[in-house]
Amino acid sequence: MIIGLDVAGGDFAPDSTIKGAILAVRELSCDDTIVLIGDQELINSKLKENDIDHTIFEIVHAPDTIGMGEHPTKALVQKPLSSIAIGFDLLKNKKIDAFASVGNTGAMLVGCITSSSIQGILRPCTTTVLPKENGGVGILLDIGTNADCKPEVLYQFAILGSLYSQYVYNIHKPKIGLLNIGEEEGKGNLVTQAAFKLMKNSPDFNFVGNIEGRDLFKDKADVIVCDGFTGNIVLKNIEAMFRLMIKRNLTDEYFNRFNYENYGGTPILGIDSSVIVGHGISSAKAIKNMIFLSRDVHNAKLSGKIKKAINNYINKEK
Amino acid sequence: MIIGLDVAGGDFAPDSTIKGAILAVRELSCDDTIVLIGDQELINSKLKENDIDHTIFEIVHAPDTIGMGEHPTKALVQKPLSSIAIGFDLLKNKKIDAFASVGNTGAMLVGCITSSSIQGILRPCTTTVLPKENGGVGILLDIGTNADCKPEVLYQFAILGSLYSQYVYNIHKPKIGLLNIGEEEGKGNLVTQAAFKLMKNSPDFNFVGNIEGRDLFKDKADVIVCDGFTGNIVLKNIEAMFRLMIKRNLTDEYFNRFNYENYGGTPILGIDSSVIVGHGISSAKAIKNMIFLSRDVHNAKLSGKIKKAINNYINKEK
Repeated sequence: MIIGLDVAGGDFAPDSTIKGAILAVRELSCDDTIVLIGDQELINSKLKENDIDHTIFEIVHAPDTIGMGEHPTKALVQKPLSSIAIGFDLLKNKKIDAFASVGNTGAMLVGCITSSSIQGILRPCTTTVLPKENGGVGILLDIGTNADCKPEVLYQFAILGSLYSQYVYNIHKPKIGLLNIGEEEGKGNLVTQAAFKLMKNSPDFNFVGNIEGRDLFKDKADVIVCDGFTGNIVLKNIEAMFRLMIKRNLTDEYFNRFNYENYGGTPILGIDSSVIVGHGISSAKAIKNMIFLSRDVHNAKLSGKIKKAINNYINKEK
Repeated sequence: MIIGLDVAGGDFAPDSTIKGAILAVRELSCDDTIVLIGDQELINSKLKENDIDHTIFEIVHAPDTIGMGEHPTKALVQKPLSSIAIGFDLLKNKKIDAFASVGNTGAMLVGCITSSSIQGILRPCTTTVLPKENGGVGILLDIGTNADCKPEVLYQFAILGSLYSQYVYNIHKPKIGLLNIGEEEGKGNLVTQAAFKLMKNSPDFNFVGNIEGRDLFKDKADVIVCDGFTGNIVLKNIEAMFRLMIKRNLTDEYFNRFNYENYGGTPILGIDSSVIVGHGISSAKAIKNMIFLSRDVHNAKLSGKIKKAINNYINKEK
């Protein structure tokens, strides 16, 4: 398969992105190709700096960059030669199978919605990994793409998360929970109360009920659904505590699994292609893992499975 | 001053509540009295077990108990001889200056709203302490009393939190932040976007802007305002990570400050009396600190200051 990497995006680009690609290419199968998308001259000089033969990559020249603070929609229109715009062109024309970037997330989202939306999906969303105490992997979604979510949107997130957990993390019949402030039905705010009602007898996923903030790392659920406002605050709070632990030299094998570098990012779920976004501060290790995640999401044929599931769901609703 | 303690409430009552009262009484000034409210015979036998002369306390007999799982409103009406109902009677008749309980929080809230509401306060709320990296104390509110909050309610929480921070934690001109998913104005969900507009030029408190989940333990704000849904999930998530750290022997002087036992609970803010609620699992140490918090809240004349501030605010609005 062919993975496109936005070399220009992120706080430490192009050094970290190129170093990450170098780490990844060594571990990828020889059937897999990484396409570096960015300023060709800069890429060549950086590869030379790292003593790397540039022919192990494909390079697509993109002279322009969308900055982290730029307005997503405007930037994508005004900068057709940016690495993100060119990445989406390559994806659309099937020159690459997956596109990964740690650049402007908003621009990546706009790119997805413009070029790869799936009919029936109300809102694409993004995810993070919750390291379970028992060694397993939980998924939290949404983590900030949609600040306000209607109950129907949370219902669809459950479908998206269930398929992601099943096909990328190989979890059989993932347990789906709703992030809430009490365990019993009827607890919560108006949105989660209504979402619980929609979810409780769902034929589309294996709903196990409400999950409280104290149970995020337990094995009660494999996928925990929430609106992007709550998810973003929870994620950043977890990161803050983890960073404080690192700073104070208080980690161990379990807590090291809180390091975002291990996961590399999140697919944008609910679109008709394989697009992966990562943390703006991504290190080379994080970039490497983002490339692996791109491969896994594509190999799992996730977007096809989501399309099929959403069609089933919509046909039932009719 | 006279502090009433619900001896019957909590998961480890009456042992932990009585032991906590014994710890507290040794450190209180001789002008302060603790009134133990619960089954008199049981209290006397527990005091004897602990070799304590029962005359160092006042005891008010309350033969009945409201269980943790009971319906708050029904229980308060149906159990007039419960420790919580009698506690509110004592408070109403000025036989005690403050009332503290780790029992059924819902019943405590109903008791407050029935007997001590302040005209103009839209919703009372509850708080938690955020241990700042710099050694200071941050306040997060609401932590679960109000799952859905209108912008006006968040605005009032800012007033309540500001006075609490100033008069109980002695923070001069507390910095008030709004918990949100981005720093700039315009970020957030519909409620926080509208709340920001109300708060930004407030004459009622010192608003410093949005605070992200990653900044909860920094010195950006002294009081962080959010709806009770978000606050409850954040609080429980922090507790979950802290418990995992304890379990894995990964704490230090800073992280030990995450132990709820150090704070003993929260006043119910926005009512016309001094009522303190604590964690159901409270240990003797937590009970002791809840009694000290009751003293501090009463001595700060917090409810009077809140009444005055809310009156000012309402008169301006007219």
